[in-house]
Amino acid sequence: MDWEIIDLHAKQWVSEAGDKIRDSFNKTLNIQTKSNPNDLVTNIDKEIEQFFIHKIREVYPNHRILGEEGFGDELSNLDGVVWIIDPIDGTMNFIHQQRNFAISLAVYENGIGKIGIIYDVAHGELYHAINGKGAFMNDTQLPSLSKRTVKESIIALNATWVMENQRIDHNLIIPLVREARGTRSYGTAALEMVFVATGRVDAYISMRLSPWDVAAGAVIIEELGGIVTNLRGKKLDFLSNDSLLVAKPGLHQTIIKDYLKEGQW
Amino acid sequence: MDWEIIDLHAKQWVSEAGDKIRDSFNKTLNIQTKSNPNDLVTNIDKEIEQFFIHKIREVYPNHRILGEEGFGDELSNLDGVVWIIDPIDGTMNFIHQQRNFAISLAVYENGIGKIGIIYDVAHGELYHAINGKGAFMNDTQLPSLSKRTVKESIIALNATWVMENQRIDHNLIIPLVREARGTRSYGTAALEMVFVATGRVDAYISMRLSPWDVAAGAVIIEELGGIVTNLRGKKLDFLSNDSLLVAKPGLHQTIIKDYLKEGQW
Repeated sequence: MDWEIIDLHAKQWVSEAGDKIRDSFNKTLNIQTKSNPNDLVTNIDKEIEQFFIHKIREVYPNHRILGEEGFGDELSNLDGVVWIIDPIDGTMNFIHQQRNFAISLAVYENGIGKIGIIYDVAHGELYHAINGKGAFMNDTQLPSLSKRTVKESIIALNATWVMENQRIDHNLIIPLVREARGTRSYGTAALEMVFVATGRVDAYISMRLSPWDVAAGAVIIEELGGIVTNLRGKKLDFLSNDSLLVAKPGLHQTIIKDYLKEGQW
Repeated sequence: MDWEIIDLHAKQWVSEAGDKIRDSFNKTLNIQTKSNPNDLVTNIDKEIEQFFIHKIREVYPNHRILGEEGFGDELSNLDGVVWIIDPIDGTMNFIHQQRNFAISLAVYENGIGKIGIIYDVAHGELYHAINGKGAFMNDTQLPSLSKRTVKESIIALNATWVMENQRIDHNLIIPLVREARGTRSYGTAALEMVFVATGRVDAYISMRLSPWDVAAGAVIIEELGGIVTNLRGKKLDFLSNDSLLVAKPGLHQTIIKDYLKEGQW
């Protein structure tokens, strides 16, 4: 398998998809004042996913595809080569902000992340990694992630998770928020993972994400020495919804051990 | 008083200050790995504030200045013309992210906001308003804010305020977060106010801000028909620290009445 060729194709298609999304901005803004913006965005989501599927099927007919909008394959395992795609991660931001959303595309082989691409369309920032060949923002190689303590950390997490909720005892999360330097919330898992990759934040926590939200980010983060698990410290299977803890080395272990009680809940 | 001339001066100085901040990026990044980044940033904060003070004193020797770093005047009232300056709002973001920070500069006359300028340096977005003459992002006039319900709203607020805290009963805020479409947190009051101005979020809530965090944003928001008060629904005095609720019309009244119990706490 020539991953560099597959990566070139993937990047080309992501770039073209970014152009399509940018072209839709004016349309979105006009419609937003008239009717239900959610309908239009769903159309763009679908259109972009179908664009990827068309391209992948044309060049790699034997590869399988897992996509948010459901135009890909029904998967019960990750055998062979699987593309995992979120055409627009951060749909609510796309509607409200025309920024803080991303295309997320990953290629896995027998469950191992080989390629991760996250395109911050509004900022023109393409984050990409091939397993074992480094992670980059556009042409700039990203440095490996270094250790950080909770006290020095900015943690991305939504306010919902420090309120009583059905996913986790919020009393596990509250001390972490109190002891961290600060928290942020951007409303896009793909970019929040990229922000860990670039050091803009030090960890990202979410209670429920889908495989296409996290598959590309996981390749990029792990390439930089960061750690990606669910909130019980277990590896993700990229087939089912799960919680997520992405963090710098050291910080990840501390959060799992000292705050999340090693999953004993 | 020729506010358009003062506005031209102010914008010129803000633009020059933005250049100085951008020049400091490399220095900051280098230092960050070596020593305490907070020291360096304090130096840049101070340098930028002194730059503004020098310029203002030169051209407008009778005006008074209120600045975060304390190089301006000690004020017990807002009589006459007062410049209110935050050289870098969002210092933690400045250190960690090199984005999501802003210069905030306002000019008030006898307590009335006349000029508000917020410069998102990293994005090259200059937000500005002169009282009664419209609000702009660079050369584009911003449309007036329209009504929005809580259910349709994205609210900017930090996770801290839905945890037990010393400022407010968090049980007042939790139902608002549950009923809103979503929440975000960016860590910069000036930009979070600007995000209300542009509709990227619909409301912004904070428990404790200083006059220089909010003075410029208030001019821009009010110019667009948005509403700026503390969390009890009272006007800000721009001399003391206070809580803040900035929101679209309708939404502001709903939050004060239905969630914050009209300040009866």
